[in-house]
Amino acid sequence: MTSLTEIGQLAKEAEVTVRNLSTNMKNQALAATARILTEHAEQILQANEVDIRIAKENHMKEGLVDRLLLTKERIEAMAEGLQQIIALDDPVGEVLQMKQRPNGLMIGQKRVPLGVIGIIYESRPNVTADAFGLCFKTGNAVILRGGSDAIHSNMAIVRLIRQALQQCQLPEDAIQLIEDTSRETAAALMKLNQYVDVLIPRGGAGLIRTVVENSTVPVIETGTGNCHIYVDETADLDMAVRIVVNAKTQRIGVCNACESLIVHETIVQEFMPRLAQAIKENGKPVEIRGDEKVRNALLDAVEAAEEDWGREYLDYILSAKTVPDIETAIAHINCYNTGHSESIVTSDYQNAQKFLNEIDAAAVYVNASTRFTDGFEFGFGAEIGISTQKLHARGPMGLLALTTTKYIIYGNGQIRE
Amino acid sequence: MTSLTEIGQLAKEAEVTVRNLSTNMKNQALAATARILTEHAEQILQANEVDIRIAKENHMKEGLVDRLLLTKERIEAMAEGLQQIIALDDPVGEVLQMKQRPNGLMIGQKRVPLGVIGIIYESRPNVTADAFGLCFKTGNAVILRGGSDAIHSNMAIVRLIRQALQQCQLPEDAIQLIEDTSRETAAALMKLNQYVDVLIPRGGAGLIRTVVENSTVPVIETGTGNCHIYVDETADLDMAVRIVVNAKTQRIGVCNACESLIVHETIVQEFMPRLAQAIKENGKPVEIRGDEKVRNALLDAVEAAEEDWGREYLDYILSAKTVPDIETAIAHINCYNTGHSESIVTSDYQNAQKFLNEIDAAAVYVNASTRFTDGFEFGFGAEIGISTQKLHARGPMGLLALTTTKYIIYGNGQIRE
Repeated sequence: MTSLTEIGQLAKEAEVTVRNLSTNMKNQALAATARILTEHAEQILQANEVDIRIAKENHMKEGLVDRLLLTKERIEAMAEGLQQIIALDDPVGEVLQMKQRPNGLMIGQKRVPLGVIGIIYESRPNVTADAFGLCFKTGNAVILRGGSDAIHSNMAIVRLIRQALQQCQLPEDAIQLIEDTSRETAAALMKLNQYVDVLIPRGGAGLIRTVVENSTVPVIETGTGNCHIYVDETADLDMAVRIVVNAKTQRIGVCNACESLIVHETIVQEFMPRLAQAIKENGKPVEIRGDEKVRNALLDAVEAAEEDWGREYLDYILSAKTVPDIETAIAHINCYNTGHSESIVTSDYQNAQKFLNEIDAAAVYVNASTRFTDGFEFGFGAEIGISTQKLHARGPMGLLALTTTKYIIYGNGQIRE
Repeated sequence: MTSLTEIGQLAKEAEVTVRNLSTNMKNQALAATARILTEHAEQILQANEVDIRIAKENHMKEGLVDRLLLTKERIEAMAEGLQQIIALDDPVGEVLQMKQRPNGLMIGQKRVPLGVIGIIYESRPNVTADAFGLCFKTGNAVILRGGSDAIHSNMAIVRLIRQALQQCQLPEDAIQLIEDTSRETAAALMKLNQYVDVLIPRGGAGLIRTVVENSTVPVIETGTGNCHIYVDETADLDMAVRIVVNAKTQRIGVCNACESLIVHETIVQEFMPRLAQAIKENGKPVEIRGDEKVRNALLDAVEAAEEDWGREYLDYILSAKTVPDIETAIAHINCYNTGHSESIVTSDYQNAQKFLNEIDAAAVYVNASTRFTDGFEFGFGAEIGISTQKLHARGPMGLLALTTTKYIIYGNGQIRE
């Protein structure tokens, strides 16, 4: 097995080639990758079956098994993601804002690759192809450290991608998977400053905290999502029901699912039974953990504990709290949220604007499901993760988040007086 | 003395007010600050005299004393810096790229303040006013932790700024100085994640390394500068002499000063004596530490050790190395540089483009002095530091580097299919 230092060296070497490839060359390699993933989907599905079997033997929770599961459709979605990346403009090489200074210096800002990107992630094997596509299109090499749960799926996907690169006479080390999924290799990757320019953790709160606290490589923190929907007293209740049911149940294992409902107390008696009815008709039962007013409105709601307000369930569970006004709703959300996605359902102009202005999160919605916080839905062609930090990138990260800039300055002998 | 936790709390409270101020209010406060700093310059100069006296008693190096020294002119430059910030557009509130998605969602990216910014810096007391001006204009609160060398100067400047804020009925805690300059308070600030959104270290290599390695608060790494000038075989040698003399001697205590000269071996015999002559006429003697070919061309050059290639002298010392071709020059620079500023002097089109493309640094120059890497010279109105990292901001950082964005999304009931 290749050592981590070797992996770092190989990535740096590959990166020198990859950063100088033309957009055409990069697109050809991505097309070859999409083709080979689709043609050999069976190899991936077989590997994924092993992962799923082990997961079920280990009694993995349903939301997590859903994250891990690959189907023919999801593999096609991977290939489609790569096609979308091909169709996107290559941001590398663009010169922004070149201006002439009074002394005649021409100063421009040129977009360049970050270099070598490390990604530490958990269950979802579709991350593997997405991450490669985005990193490669932007001229970066990538070192992947997936979770042990998905190791068979990841190895199958990476093997196919490397075959595609080889077919194109490109350095296959532009993508490398760390096959040793022990904690030690993850810890070592976090200190690999000599070779790794940025580290992106994707997964649960525990993983992300570990990386943020232990990495000396610069980190982009990505998101756990305790996403809220606030149903204002002026809300269209039919719309609110549709949005909450969608945000809670459309896919439970994802970070942009709704975990917490806030309801204005004047409408709680009318709203909660309608929500419960819609959930029933939807066929996916949801446990509602509510405060006293919620429980009065909905007798089969269970009592919420203080800790429920801060939880990301990734399950068919929803906490529900009543508030006397929008100020309380905003204060509650800004206290308990994880800086991911928050939505208000309202018909009131001032409340819509107030919510947009005062909520501190990566994505703030009016009258829409939180499930849209996603690189595809935002039109980026794919996403490398959803940043919940404020530096460098915030929200869904597409191609631009994987680049940096350098200033290029054309002079004709200028010196500083 | 206020505890660090209290300082953090006060900053967070002030920030809620500051982030919502109109541009007009912020500009009025900055104008009041500029006025009060100029009117009471004498208070700052008296405090600075104490710092300078102590520095000289402690045999501080000349380059560092220069960084510490304030004069009436430098205080006027501080006030002028604030006036330039007033004149700049306020980036906060701008909505970038609002687009309608196929499902009708309107998705825009809104520029918002970072929050509370911590700055850990060393000698230069003019940083105090600059940092406040830039952080305040962008709606942030700032916690300053200056060095013990400049503590009297910094206390005088911060006292005056807080007076200005008070006069404008604004929260004076939008700027706070940590008066305890022990290592312990700096270490505690690096872990103050609850209150501090980003930490910017400004100072020597040791300080920056300490912050990068110990901070759990996200860091923007700013720059030590081992800046190179490569004199190509096709260079206009008169221009090259002017640029090297300027970059080395115009101000030695700054990170964009030239520390290392690379000369094509075919011109070294002609170039070095002309450079030495110009340095002599300039009246500021420079010790040149060269390789063998440099010493053959310039008999009073001393022998360079391997470690000289990587040093930031901040002094009248210049390392000098010969190379057989531009590839060797680029490889040498990419190996030893600190990612700050590098310049080529050349008349060759291909070499100019090659240098711009292949050098990995925040600012890459053709035919100009490295001394221009600076927020004022780049037209940002001021600077909060020069980032030598690749995330978030690279190169001189002005207003934009002190903001983040959030996505705001206007819907009318959209749910995800």
